[in-house]
Amino acid sequence: MCGTENKTPASGLPAVSGETWPTTPSPDAVLNLDVGDPTMYEAYWKGAGDRCSLVISGSELMSYISNPGSTCWFLEPELDKSIRRIHDLVGNAVAEDGRHIVVGTGSTQLLQAALYALCPPGLPKPTSVVCAAPYYSCYQEVTELLQSNLYKWEGDAHNFDKDGPFVEIVTSPNNPDGLVREAVVNCPNGKLVHDLAYYWPHYTPITRQADYDIMLFTFSKCSGHAGSRIGWAIVKDKEVAVKMTKFMEVTTIGVSKESQLRAAKILGTICDDCQAFNANTKSESFFDHAKRLMTERWDKLHEVIKRSEIFSLAKFPRDYCLFSAEFFETHPAFAWLKCNNKVKDSEGLLRGHKILTRSGNRFGADRTYVRVSMLSGEEVFNLFLERLSTIKIGIGNGNDTSHIN
Amino acid sequence: MCGTENKTPASGLPAVSGETWPTTPSPDAVLNLDVGDPTMYEAYWKGAGDRCSLVISGSELMSYISNPGSTCWFLEPELDKSIRRIHDLVGNAVAEDGRHIVVGTGSTQLLQAALYALCPPGLPKPTSVVCAAPYYSCYQEVTELLQSNLYKWEGDAHNFDKDGPFVEIVTSPNNPDGLVREAVVNCPNGKLVHDLAYYWPHYTPITRQADYDIMLFTFSKCSGHAGSRIGWAIVKDKEVAVKMTKFMEVTTIGVSKESQLRAAKILGTICDDCQAFNANTKSESFFDHAKRLMTERWDKLHEVIKRSEIFSLAKFPRDYCLFSAEFFETHPAFAWLKCNNKVKDSEGLLRGHKILTRSGNRFGADRTYVRVSMLSGEEVFNLFLERLSTIKIGIGNGNDTSHIN
Repeated sequence: MCGTENKTPASGLPAVSGETWPTTPSPDAVLNLDVGDPTMYEAYWKGAGDRCSLVISGSELMSYISNPGSTCWFLEPELDKSIRRIHDLVGNAVAEDGRHIVVGTGSTQLLQAALYALCPPGLPKPTSVVCAAPYYSCYQEVTELLQSNLYKWEGDAHNFDKDGPFVEIVTSPNNPDGLVREAVVNCPNGKLVHDLAYYWPHYTPITRQADYDIMLFTFSKCSGHAGSRIGWAIVKDKEVAVKMTKFMEVTTIGVSKESQLRAAKILGTICDDCQAFNANTKSESFFDHAKRLMTERWDKLHEVIKRSEIFSLAKFPRDYCLFSAEFFETHPAFAWLKCNNKVKDSEGLLRGHKILTRSGNRFGADRTYVRVSMLSGEEVFNLFLERLSTIKIGIGNGNDTSHIN
Repeated sequence: MCGTENKTPASGLPAVSGETWPTTPSPDAVLNLDVGDPTMYEAYWKGAGDRCSLVISGSELMSYISNPGSTCWFLEPELDKSIRRIHDLVGNAVAEDGRHIVVGTGSTQLLQAALYALCPPGLPKPTSVVCAAPYYSCYQEVTELLQSNLYKWEGDAHNFDKDGPFVEIVTSPNNPDGLVREAVVNCPNGKLVHDLAYYWPHYTPITRQADYDIMLFTFSKCSGHAGSRIGWAIVKDKEVAVKMTKFMEVTTIGVSKESQLRAAKILGTICDDCQAFNANTKSESFFDHAKRLMTERWDKLHEVIKRSEIFSLAKFPRDYCLFSAEFFETHPAFAWLKCNNKVKDSEGLLRGHKILTRSGNRFGADRTYVRVSMLSGEEVFNLFLERLSTIKIGIGNGNDTSHIN
């Protein structure tokens, strides 16, 4: 995986050539749907106008330190406030005052911080790290990157049967397949990290207020501001929060303050709008807008898949969302496409049509699966559907036969 | 070192109690001069007015990707341009077009990226990492944090005599002692990382344009914007730059874009001003201002030290600065104070006077030394001098005897 760095980096970011990331794609452009870059939300934020603009003078935010009295001393108080407020409003996670918020450079850094906090030195063997397959490909990459003696990637949690201490990462809704999940290892030596990046009401019904020991969230997938690299953890145990903060302190001496302030402002605006629009429903709040877009995209994709002889999708559950007070079906940030068993390499098949996706084998699954981002810009998404609907395989048509079993 | 996390974290950031980080300190406040928080430059940037203000709309900077055609795909083109421009203007490092710029969440993250790039997996033993003592305390902490099998901290480069591959970190001017340095290990298996965080004309004369394989710089110490967490590496070899980028991609999926844009703007303003003020010398450029402040502070400190029976300072060289076209003496960002041999624990002695500093033993030196930040706010600095001048030791005065040998 790490050996592919020049062409398709670990996170699928970005292919080397500029042509793979056009703003307005030409009809024969390479479409990068490997990375989950949430540019689909740009139009909404353009419409939001000056309310979301942030002005920072030359003399602000100069110190390393944001809040010396807090467990996480580099967390801007305004961001702390916005994070607790949005969870309270949406009802997706318990983030009341007693819980500790730790901010990170994206939730990826916080996952590493959690592993550092949960995997002490001095044990006979490194602590095992597992996640039920299909799992987010970056977990393996980040766990293996520095060949740490503190922890070791052990792959699919379903197959884990060792006696020693372990950490299970639980992603819910799951990346890549969008399903709601619980921990699968039934063993007393484990600690859990819940990655709830997609537990927001534009992706999935909010069925209850999550209340786990360590819960990870990211600004990227909540509002679409991936470039800000802001994630946060909600942590029950103070000692764990202190160790996570320590990890961030040693590796990056905190988290960029400009981005923290911007996240505080955008999350605050989302809350303001939800509350205002609940009272006056003429306008569309961010979550309403994003849910409508996701629903439309998934409806279109289902139409194309229905006519396809090659691709299929799992059926998603329908559930009651406590936030939006209605029943709806999950519409995840990624489509987890399966090709029929004539295709041995789905990623290769799509690449042949200039659609870059991430192969199932990166997620501990097989190559008949691919993960496709549903969060691209509108034009890229439409081109994707157009191409997908034309893909046919069969001996004799001269196309795509290399991918057939 | 890592065991001290609750009270005095690795980087000395911050003591737990809010009282250790007052904006306007009371006369008996605890003064935190452990961390090199460069708040002394705030007043300059307040005076710079709107020219340095950054406005970011809600829809900007949403993508993970900044420049897909660049080796470092998450580097904002405007920051790339400002970095090359300021090095060209100051003449402190070769940063012409053929060199690769890699941006990091502070230069600390880039040091880890460099270690990842220079210490390949699959060797019989981890690659040794060394630095001549006294060395910046964070090198050891960051190298040891995850107990990596790729690299191992081996301490003082002067004592390194192994045959295997190694990385030597060369800090010049050095943190903590401010001296200009070259590599010390004389062995063919080594690779060098030059940390040039303090090679700017407010700290030291610019005597030549540095042109090393990997050079690290940080926005914190250049302009004083530590909260932005922006550092950069100038890298000669493309493969090394690709691997460093890969490290950043896996660990944080890039670097906060708001902070990159702000750094681009501030560095650009510094350049604009230098060029304008060279033509019209009525106003003071940032470097002139900062150099004047540092000179004044060092003059005051030398005065206090001259009268002290306890503390001493090494003499700094005087050299010709190609940038400012004059001779001057180095005035580093830290004072490396030595207590006379009656004191066994200088850090403890100063702590007794509510002055937090970093003990020499954290830098591979002995406890008679302490590192003291020279970059605090004006009031904190003046209180520090006031207290320093009153410190006396001696059997019978009832004070400080616990620190006497």
